[in-house]
Amino acid sequence: MRLLRIGEPGRERPAVLVDDEHYVDVSDVVHDFGEMFFGSDAGLDGLAEVAAARTAAGEMSPVGGQRLGPPIARPHQIVCVGLNYIDHARETGQDIPAEPILFNKAPNTLIGPNDDVRLPRGYTKPDWEVELGIVIGRRASYLQSESEALAAIAGYLVVNDVSERAFQMERGGQWVKGKSAETFNPAGPWLVTPDEIPQVRNLKMWLDVNGVRRQSGSTSTMIFSPAHLVSYISQFLVLEPGDLINTGTPPGVGMGHQPPVWLQPGDVMELGIEGLGSQRQTVIGPR
Amino acid sequence: MRLLRIGEPGRERPAVLVDDEHYVDVSDVVHDFGEMFFGSDAGLDGLAEVAAARTAAGEMSPVGGQRLGPPIARPHQIVCVGLNYIDHARETGQDIPAEPILFNKAPNTLIGPNDDVRLPRGYTKPDWEVELGIVIGRRASYLQSESEALAAIAGYLVVNDVSERAFQMERGGQWVKGKSAETFNPAGPWLVTPDEIPQVRNLKMWLDVNGVRRQSGSTSTMIFSPAHLVSYISQFLVLEPGDLINTGTPPGVGMGHQPPVWLQPGDVMELGIEGLGSQRQTVIGPR
Repeated sequence: MRLLRIGEPGRERPAVLVDDEHYVDVSDVVHDFGEMFFGSDAGLDGLAEVAAARTAAGEMSPVGGQRLGPPIARPHQIVCVGLNYIDHARETGQDIPAEPILFNKAPNTLIGPNDDVRLPRGYTKPDWEVELGIVIGRRASYLQSESEALAAIAGYLVVNDVSERAFQMERGGQWVKGKSAETFNPAGPWLVTPDEIPQVRNLKMWLDVNGVRRQSGSTSTMIFSPAHLVSYISQFLVLEPGDLINTGTPPGVGMGHQPPVWLQPGDVMELGIEGLGSQRQTVIGPR
Repeated sequence: MRLLRIGEPGRERPAVLVDDEHYVDVSDVVHDFGEMFFGSDAGLDGLAEVAAARTAAGEMSPVGGQRLGPPIARPHQIVCVGLNYIDHARETGQDIPAEPILFNKAPNTLIGPNDDVRLPRGYTKPDWEVELGIVIGRRASYLQSESEALAAIAGYLVVNDVSERAFQMERGGQWVKGKSAETFNPAGPWLVTPDEIPQVRNLKMWLDVNGVRRQSGSTSTMIFSPAHLVSYISQFLVLEPGDLINTGTPPGVGMGHQPPVWLQPGDVMELGIEGLGSQRQTVIGPR
């Protein structure tokens, strides 16, 4: 199943994608794709039946021409994983981490997959990061196995973990400063349930800036797998239903180029992951 | 005005303290002390009138014997400031920061002021930190002056920024890992509005473990003031109404002792800040 949210910012309606170009609205049966929905056992299963019945009844609408919101409501937390691709760790000149590096991003950075990315005031080194996002499906603490962790995953989606490298690296020690500017977490176009992504450790991923291929990688070079990450993170904190984990980026970020390449207003980022759809953002200047 | 939340976890009712031992319930006029309440202009002003009328009508109940929740609902984010006291920075052997160090704590760490603090599995170096907490009263971005920042503060409260130093310092680079275990953010007993705290830069603060004074300090040795912090943070991210900022701790944390002193199950922490009340937590072992 593929879940999406359609409508203007703050007024998105939950929907289910029924083919690549059509959806059925489910806003009468689901308040939102948020903590309460993912935390309810009835959530995803019940929804599949509703979507099938409505598709059979011909109640589909075209996706084209409508704004897509992020496929999930603002989460309780966004946990990010740093340096989780062997080839990306190498390009940044840093050691392969012995265990996952975690940091946070403000939850209100979440925007739709095709919304504008607004640079923060004082930016000098804005950068892109195509990433596999994991959405948590149940409250999770001290998960003891990969199978427990997989059972706690509601689905996967594309995220762009936009960063301001000077704020991240040169302003006092912790990375959150360069990760949390408004609009810095495009997500979507949809959340795909794990049954549709059997090869989550072998998905091609890519990112273009102004039509030039900048990132080209695969989840096959991830150091720590999605199941390992969910289990690992759950040893340090309690994951809530609807929480988002950004699992790290493959090579080709702006910081990794020689010389570095930074985003500018007017740039267009296009990115995607095999089986999870694609995004397109225009970069705009500060407020 | 002093705001508090009374009742069992997850079912707390908002209330207003009318003297040191009595409150009036306001759960019929306020859904909760959360983002919607703080973001509404009518919020605090209207509440003062309701509390006065109910006090005059004799509708007070005793605080004694009731569980206090955290005085605010789970916030959108908890932003923490590191090394913000001159004397604490010195005891950790680190340089005085040139600008505030920011990191995050999972919002679901928030508990009541007298709830048990549960150590995480695998703990070796759990530590305490009495801190002045700031609650944000309006959406805040790119605040340009200290007066703008002060206008964005809904109130102040006592927090204990509990930490697991091995997770924080020895497990891969970013501090969040040692800050986000469940129960690691006792808050309260109440939120005090700024009009009742005219000397926010000159408040005594203290923390005892098992009756031994461990921290003894004053907000007068803060490096960056509350107004400066709110303005500074708002340059990097958007603060939402009800967000919590933990502003750093004075000297005397366990890590700062020679040799270091770490928390153990059975320990009792008592802490407080002048004008903001006090807390008492028993430390318990992992689940």
